[in-house]
Order: sequence, then C-alpha cells, then structure tokens
Amino acid sequence: MEIVESHASCGGRQEVWKHYSETLKCEMRFGIYLPEYVLRGERRPVLYWLSGLTCTEQNFITKAGAQKFAAKHQLIVVSLDTSPRGETVPDEDIYCLGQGASFYINSTTTPWAEHFQMQDYVSMELPALIESYFLASNRRSIFGHSMGGHGALVTALRNPGRYKSVSAFSPIVAPTQVPWGRKAFHAYLGMDSESWKDWDAVELVGKATERLPLLIDQGGADEFLVEQLRPELLTAACNAVDFPIELKIHSDYDHSYYFIASFIGGHFLHHAAALSK
Amino acid sequence: MEIVESHASCGGRQEVWKHYSETLKCEMRFGIYLPEYVLRGERRPVLYWLSGLTCTEQNFITKAGAQKFAAKHQLIVVSLDTSPRGETVPDEDIYCLGQGASFYINSTTTPWAEHFQMQDYVSMELPALIESYFLASNRRSIFGHSMGGHGALVTALRNPGRYKSVSAFSPIVAPTQVPWGRKAFHAYLGMDSESWKDWDAVELVGKATERLPLLIDQGGADEFLVEQLRPELLTAACNAVDFPIELKIHSDYDHSYYFIASFIGGHFLHHAAALSK
Repeated sequence: MEIVESHASCGGRQEVWKHYSETLKCEMRFGIYLPEYVLRGERRPVLYWLSGLTCTEQNFITKAGAQKFAAKHQLIVVSLDTSPRGETVPDEDIYCLGQGASFYINSTTTPWAEHFQMQDYVSMELPALIESYFLASNRRSIFGHSMGGHGALVTALRNPGRYKSVSAFSPIVAPTQVPWGRKAFHAYLGMDSESWKDWDAVELVGKATERLPLLIDQGGADEFLVEQLRPELLTAACNAVDFPIELKIHSDYDHSYYFIASFIGGHFLHHAAALSK
Repeated sequence: MEIVESHASCGGRQEVWKHYSETLKCEMRFGIYLPEYVLRGERRPVLYWLSGLTCTEQNFITKAGAQKFAAKHQLIVVSLDTSPRGETVPDEDIYCLGQGASFYINSTTTPWAEHFQMQDYVSMELPALIESYFLASNRRSIFGHSMGGHGALVTALRNPGRYKSVSAFSPIVAPTQVPWGRKAFHAYLGMDSESWKDWDAVELVGKATERLPLLIDQGGADEFLVEQLRPELLTAACNAVDFPIELKIHSDYDHSYYFIASFIGGHFLHHAAALSK
C-alpha cells in the first residue's frame, strides 16, 4: 500500500492509494475519504462508489461534491477504478469493453479471465483491505453511476448480508438486454447467455432473499435512457416480487456529474440511515 | 455567441458559451450558471470567478461544488478562461506566462499587447455581454483562486463602484514581489517596474477610495504560501490604511480545488450579503 495523494477536505482528508491486487493481478488505485472522526481514532462505516465507463477513481472524488456529505454523516467513502489496469491487462479500442469497462463481473473467458475478476475485488479483496488498514467498520453500503450503478446493484444483490443499502444514479439495470451490456458480457462470459443472468440486476432481484433499501435517481433527459439504461425494467421486476424500490426521474437532467452532484446529498441520507441502524 | 454545453444542475443550468472577443481578438469560452429564478424570467446579480494558472473555464464548474450555493442564493456565476487562446495568440512553454497565465492585466509590450488585454475583457467587455445577453443585473461581485485571486483583487480595486464585494482563495497578493508575478510582469509590462504597481493588490489597497467587503481563505499547508502568495503582505497593507480584511488561515489545507470546495459556501455567503444590499 502506497499513498499517492492526500488533501485536507471538509474537515477530513481525501486520499488516493495504490496497491497490488492479488485478485486482479495488477496494481490498482482507489480514492478514500476519511472524515474527521476517523482521523481522531473512531471506526466508521464505509460507502463504496463504483464509477461508469471510461472513469477512474478520480471522477467521483473531483466532481461529485461528495466530501461535504461524507463529512456531514462522518462516513468513509471509497471510490474504485473501473477495471484492472496496466500494460499486461487486455484492452479493446471501444469504450464499453476492456480497461475502464469491467462491468464489475468475474470473467470466464480468454484473454479476459486472468485479470477481470472485478466482482471478487469489489466485494471481497478491497473491503478486507480497507477494514484492516483504515479505521473502517464492517458496516458497508454501495452505490454507483451508469455501469457502476449496474455494478452496485449486482454486487449488493449477489452478496446478501454484506451491504446495508444500495443506490444508483442512471444505472444499466438490465445489461443482458441492452447493447453495452450484451457486447461486454459476450466478451467476458462467452456465448452462453444463460450465464449472463447471474450479472443482471433485473434477473437477480427476482431471486433476492434480502430486501435492502434501494434508491435510484435517473435523469429524464439522459442521452442513454431509452437504449442502455431502461429503469422501467427494474421497477417491473421489483414490483413482481414486492422488492421496495424508490425510483426518482428528474426531467431535464442528463448523464453527467452535474446530475450526480445535484442529488448526491439524498444518496448520503439514504445510506447514512441504513448504516446507523 | 454560441452555446457549447448545457446541463441541468441544482435546479438551474450550468452552461458553457463561446464568442469572439473584440478586446482579445480571439474566440473565448466562459461558463455560466443560471439559477432557477433566472430560468423563470427574473434578473439576478452576477458573481465572476477568475481561475488560476493553467486553468480554463472548466476547472471551477466541474470541481468547486459551486452550483449548490449559487442555487441557494440564486446568483448567476460566470467562470472565465485564464487568458486569450488560440493558434494566433502568443504562448510560452512555462506555466506562469502566455496562454493560461494572463494575470488579468492589460499588456503594453510586443508580442503580448495585441491579445493580452484581459483586464478590459474581465471588467468591461464580458460584463456588458453578460448583462445584455442573459437576465443578469449590473450588481456584480468577483472572486478567484491563486493567479485568479490576484485578478479578482486587482479588478475590484482598480474599478471602484463596479463590484459590491471581492474574495479570494490563496491569492497572489503581491505579484511585484514574488517570482511568478515578476516573471509575468516583466514580459507583459516591460522593464519599468514602477508600472507594475498598477497591477499589484498590496500597492492598490494603499490608494483605494472604496472599502468593499474583502474575504480571503488561505490554506496553511499550501505549497506556494511562502514563496508566491504571502498574504501577510496584504494584511499589513490593509492595516496601514484601515481597509477591513477578513483573512482566514486553514491549517492542513493545500492549494487544490479540495480546499476551494471545502470553503466555497462561505464565499457565497460573503457575496450574497453584499449583493443583496
């Protein structure tokens, strides 16, 4: 573990660390906001943020305005990179596949499977590291944006008991039914599309054994809404099994971090309530 | 005038526009936040932001978290680029001179004077444009960061009556006495260092005929504090002439936008109070 950046921020510190991941077989970076109480020696819960296609750990920590709310609720916030990285890691020249586009799954195909075990990294290796190295409790929640919204939903639904709450901005809710997801799953998981369903929130919610608090904010003027995101599919799947979902559509808002920064405070309220129980 | 970006943000819209500047003889971009009341047809005051070395209009609008506070106080916020731009505009390979480093002055030397009339652009051409094109009142305040903090101080002090209040994060308060400023002023203004004093806040405050509200936030762990910023010189100059100054030193904070985002709310309070009088 090596520190890359450290800035005073809203009474706490925003840091960036790098470490070698055994799961991903490469060096990874993550952002971590440590609120004032943690700096003073108190153990606090952790909120994990998964970013969208093409992002790194930087987008969220520089653009979302999250530190103010992390300080208000005294939560640790960890922001992940979006895939394994480096010269030895396979890549493609399209933005929905390869580096920057892990879809937070465990790949089963060549050449992807060697490094692209991102689900194990997100749900197991990184939390274990955070909880041993920092003053982080094992009370966790998870949220994300777009591909990272998909990642947050799938990670929470696949790991009952590990997260207190989940939320997403503009998530890809049904990757098996939309172009970005189908392209990526074909590469990472192979021809058998039955196996894809294990990584699709709309499929997983139907089998969920746990009802954790679920909040989704979606921009009504989002350029990807109709073709790639389709939140109505998740609402229908939730309604079919009485899984409570709070879905808010905000007319005029697009897919950008301006949208996220406008409503991030509500997501912190959602998670802080669940993490304090 | 052509719109480049437009995003819903905190109940208003964050936009970026480009236009041909007669003063600078090149195309310029600026960011403008239009709060909800303006979108509904009400004329509102304007707060101008001047960025620091190497920045464009983007840094502030993406990283400062200002839109939440602009919405709270229903202020228009205009964020400027830091110099004339383009292939015909002279430049240097150092970051404190040329494009990205205007120091917001009017140059008198070859080859700079043809385009580098940034003070006239900041204080005259751009406000006239904003007030004719948008629902902006002629109640103005100005603030900035680092080289842009210098720009805000100098612009307010040189133009009594045009601004209701001024503030700065980590400003260069005495450019005639520090390396960045001396390098730039030598190029833009020539050998006669007497003429430099017209662009130095510490010099100007001694002759100021107006006492507008002045707030400065400075990080105590700022890497440029001792060599380039030296806020104590401004405090001494203010004290000598009974010019009220509110200077806050925040230990641990550095020169980054994490610092700005941590304390931006206080600057909006400062300006909103002055603009509402």
